[in-house]
This record gives sequence, C-alpha cells and structure tokens, in this order.
Amino acid sequence: MSNRIITISREFGSGGRTIGKEAAAKLGIPCYDAELLEKIAKESGFAKDYIAEHSEYAAGGSWISRAFSGRDYQGHSYQDDLWSIQHKIIRELAEKESCVIVGRCADYILRDKADCLRVFIHADLESRAKRIVEQYGERSDSPKKRLKDKDKRRAAYYQFYTDMKWGDVHNYHISLDSGELGIDKCVDIISRLY
Amino acid sequence: MSNRIITISREFGSGGRTIGKEAAAKLGIPCYDAELLEKIAKESGFAKDYIAEHSEYAAGGSWISRAFSGRDYQGHSYQDDLWSIQHKIIRELAEKESCVIVGRCADYILRDKADCLRVFIHADLESRAKRIVEQYGERSDSPKKRLKDKDKRRAAYYQFYTDMKWGDVHNYHISLDSGELGIDKCVDIISRLY
Repeated sequence: MSNRIITISREFGSGGRTIGKEAAAKLGIPCYDAELLEKIAKESGFAKDYIAEHSEYAAGGSWISRAFSGRDYQGHSYQDDLWSIQHKIIRELAEKESCVIVGRCADYILRDKADCLRVFIHADLESRAKRIVEQYGERSDSPKKRLKDKDKRRAAYYQFYTDMKWGDVHNYHISLDSGELGIDKCVDIISRLY
Repeated sequence: MSNRIITISREFGSGGRTIGKEAAAKLGIPCYDAELLEKIAKESGFAKDYIAEHSEYAAGGSWISRAFSGRDYQGHSYQDDLWSIQHKIIRELAEKESCVIVGRCADYILRDKADCLRVFIHADLESRAKRIVEQYGERSDSPKKRLKDKDKRRAAYYQFYTDMKWGDVHNYHISLDSGELGIDKCVDIISRLY
C-alpha cells in the first residue's frame, strides 16, 4: 500500500501546527514540523533559526527586494538552495512513510501524489492575535501587525516558488476555520478523512 | 434555543445542491433551494426562470454592462429589487427555523448570525464538467466553457452585492473539494459539524 500523507498549510497563529501534531498522534503516524527543520539543517549546513525564517518566508521589504535580495550574478540565492533541499527532503519523506507534514509548501511539492490530503487552516485576525500572544508572548509590534507581516511574507514566498496563490481554496481538499470550529473539531475532521 | 443554519455556497457543477439536500435530510431539517425560488417568485411576481437566472448571476458581457444593464435613471435595476426580496426572505427563514440554505449569498446575508455554519463546495473543472453533462445533458457549448461563464457571472454578482470576493476561503468556516472527497464524505462532515 502506498504511503498516505496529510499536508497542513496554515495561516500564522491559526493553530495549524497543533492541529497537525494532534491529528498525527491520533492516527499513530509521525508529524514533520520541527523535525523537518532538523533534517533540512543537517543536509544544508544552515542554522535552524536561519531555516525557520527562510524556508517559508520571503524577506521583508518590497516585492522587488524580496525577490532579488541576496542573489548572485546568476540570480541564484541561498533561499533557492534551501528550496531545493526542502523539496528533496519532503519528496523523500513522502516516499518513506505515511505522515503529516506542516507547512513548507508540501502541498505544492507533493501535488502529483495521489494519496495526499491537502488541508488549509485559517482563522480570523482576532483569534490568531490572541493565540500568538498566548504562544509567543507580547512584543513591541502589535500582534495584528506581526500577523499581517507574516502572512504577507509567507504568501510572497509561496507565490515565488510555486507560481500559485497561497490560501487559494482550490489548492486544498479541505479548508477549516480553526477560530470558529476550534482545534479539536479540526483534528477530528482531518483524522476521520484520513 | 436559537435556530441553527447551514449556508452552502458552491461552484456550479460541484454538487453543492445535492450535498445541501442530503445533509438536511440526515439532520431532519428543511433545505431551501428550489423552495427559496418559489418563495421569491411568490413575493416578487417574477417568473421562476427569470429568478433562477438573476438571483445569483450577473448578466453576461463586460463588467460595465453587467453592473449597469437594465438600470433606470436612478441607477436602480430589477436585479436590485430581487436582491432586496431574497435578502428579506432569507433573513425571515433564518428567524423561523433551523435549515440549510443553498446559494443566493445566504452566507453574506446571515453573516452576523452567530449560529450559522458557512460552507463552500468547490471541485476541479474536470469533475464539474463531467457532473454537469450527467445532470443537464450535452449542449452546443463545451461544458468547461459553460462552467467558466457561470463561475464568472456568479462571482461578479456576489462581488457586486456583497463587496466581498466569492470563494475567498476566509468567508467560510469550512471549504470542501467535492471532486476529491466525494459527495458522501462532504455530507458526513457537514452533518457531524452541525
């Protein structure tokens, strides 16, 4: 039997990571999130903090600076190297075993894989703001400003490497509003669908 | 206890209507779709065919002609009258009883109602094309052309009256790909969530 994969794409602060972990625990399969970071770090030689920041987010600033910052004369950047490595690792994971993979464009990277449930988790700004303050504490920036910045950079990254629109309903088999439904119901729906 | 409503917004040919009906049957509550048309016809005096065409779709042609066709010197159209009537009827239904309401911007019209599950059903073009040929038979236009036209006009109608983007994931609590998941699973998920 071929491996069955669940990819979880999520808005920052929507609890997508928690939902992925809990669904995986319920199903008795591994969930790759921080573990994916470890693998990419090991293979690439980059530090984990650098990867966390550059494997899902475009750099800040304007679109032009985002798209071209840190590129050499051939138009190649460290972020492109990271993309190749995470692409390869995600493909290998999906070959190896059934699992949940959180973020990192896994939905796109595994788009041709038949047995892959593509999930998108979103929530309104209020619930996400509340959640990130609980999870990551207060900062000098307002939580809503932090969320908008993260969303914008994640969307830009996704668009740059996949040529698709991040959060477009058509890219996912199921999209869930975790703010309205709550974490437990999302976990339940995803595990039942598996 | 307040009434609990499910609104089903759907891409043409995605089976959203069938999903709405089956979920309602499972839950033992009424489903308003053709029945809504009847009510609007009775109250407005318009023929049902006219309503079916004008209560969810912008007219064909360019955006300008869509937005302004058939408007009197005050910028008012028959479609605006229909909008007011369907707005009123949908609000009344939601006050009266728990039910499923298919289409007709009910998600927007009931956006301030607390106990309302907003569902969006979509599917890839292939599955929808197959479905509309099965349901409505062959026509001179290709099924994909028909779908694209319907989608475009439905989106334009929605945007015109709600000032929101039709099919934007953030407008719904749950979005389901009926082409991938199948009708039965969608019915099952919705009824369980209720």
